[in-house]
Amino acid sequence: MAEILDVTSPDDPRLDDYTRLRDVELRKSLEAERGLFLAEGEKVIRRAVAAGYPVRSVLTTRRWLAALADVLDPLEAPVYVVSEEVVEGVAGFQVHRGALASLGRVELPPTAALLARARRVLVLEDLVDHGNVGAIFRCAAALGVDAVLLSPRCADPLYRRSVKVSMGAVFAVPYARMTEWYDGLAELRAAGFRTLALTPDQSAAPMDKVDLADRAALLLGSEGDGLSSRWLHEADQAVCIPMSAEAMDLGVDSLNVVAAAAIACYALVR
Amino acid sequence: MAEILDVTSPDDPRLDDYTRLRDVELRKSLEAERGLFLAEGEKVIRRAVAAGYPVRSVLTTRRWLAALADVLDPLEAPVYVVSEEVVEGVAGFQVHRGALASLGRVELPPTAALLARARRVLVLEDLVDHGNVGAIFRCAAALGVDAVLLSPRCADPLYRRSVKVSMGAVFAVPYARMTEWYDGLAELRAAGFRTLALTPDQSAAPMDKVDLADRAALLLGSEGDGLSSRWLHEADQAVCIPMSAEAMDLGVDSLNVVAAAAIACYALVR
Repeated sequence: MAEILDVTSPDDPRLDDYTRLRDVELRKSLEAERGLFLAEGEKVIRRAVAAGYPVRSVLTTRRWLAALADVLDPLEAPVYVVSEEVVEGVAGFQVHRGALASLGRVELPPTAALLARARRVLVLEDLVDHGNVGAIFRCAAALGVDAVLLSPRCADPLYRRSVKVSMGAVFAVPYARMTEWYDGLAELRAAGFRTLALTPDQSAAPMDKVDLADRAALLLGSEGDGLSSRWLHEADQAVCIPMSAEAMDLGVDSLNVVAAAAIACYALVR
Repeated sequence: MAEILDVTSPDDPRLDDYTRLRDVELRKSLEAERGLFLAEGEKVIRRAVAAGYPVRSVLTTRRWLAALADVLDPLEAPVYVVSEEVVEGVAGFQVHRGALASLGRVELPPTAALLARARRVLVLEDLVDHGNVGAIFRCAAALGVDAVLLSPRCADPLYRRSVKVSMGAVFAVPYARMTEWYDGLAELRAAGFRTLALTPDQSAAPMDKVDLADRAALLLGSEGDGLSSRWLHEADQAVCIPMSAEAMDLGVDSLNVVAAAAIACYALVR
């Protein structure tokens, strides 16, 4: 049974996990140091708890307690009940969805263990935008991609904005982080994966014509530059989403990374 | 040859087209009244001009004049050169991409004329988010959808945010607005289109198994509620994007509207 505690000051040290949520750099170091991440809103908190992440604490307001009762009741963690003003004073903005939870990170599986259980994998190289990472996890989960593999520098799926945009899908798709970028694809090959590099280059093989081997990994590059030339050359095959010739002439010849990922996941699990 | 004019005050009436860009309601009525819309940034302005929209004026800063010289030179419209502070004073925020252009709207084609020239059509019912409308136009353009048809209440593709998110694709895909919602699909049927209602309902026909007739129109519903029951029932066939059974169990069983639209366009033009 969770302990319900009223907290009246935004400076109360028990609220430190929730400090300055808009300060990306501060949050990154604070979350890494303490091994925590935040989930926002009733549904997302529910999914994080269901996925087994240990709850450190919950921050909410009086009027949201009831909606969360069934999630909070079995918890061991403290539930801090504060006014809207205190939430804003701590977090730096109004939290509209009623609650924040601070959860403990769990150790990610080694890449080899992740790949051993998967058949269709998405590999993200150096995506920098947390919202895009979250949106891509949402696509991967909904469409049935088995696992996501992140390059060493790819943005954190458990950062608050990733979690939020993913609607909790970051808890549903197993993922791991590569320890090395340069020879990152070697491990995929060793696990029997055919690696497909997604590129806007229209001379690549169209996604829907590609021979999807028993195990296939789709490589997706960063927002601006796409895949590194290293990975493009190392991959077994370059693949593309066919673009309209007319659009190419008009210069509106690209999809944003989330739209491209959605189509790629759809084609990958077909 | 465009006339280059220095303007020093944010209250100068010649800058009225650019007033308070963040005030959605004000902008909607102002733009409707004057029959104008705004394009932001060099690339997007370039595409709007190339698409034949008449330029009312351009607002820029001294250091961006050179980058736009080839676009501005042939224009008849005045080019107002202001300081960064004046831009901010007028628009309400810093314009990072160097320039804004005020352009005249042109009359949209009647639905029948639009449909007569198209084979693959996307129909948007009551989408409210300008960014989503822009992102969907970008997908439609890149993938080669012939035309977009908007329900009477669907958000404006020429609103600043739609234009920006679309990267100018709103100028590349012909579109029209239905005059009526309730019997809106009748006109599509009359033009020989098979209407396909996209739904998350997994008992509908999977998109990739649907018989795409000579002419097919894909109906896409609003962000929260999806398609109206009226349109769902009036459509020739309900279609879905197959979701992972596992994701359904975990409750992460939906795509956002842009991801769904991207996949739907991809499947529609296959």
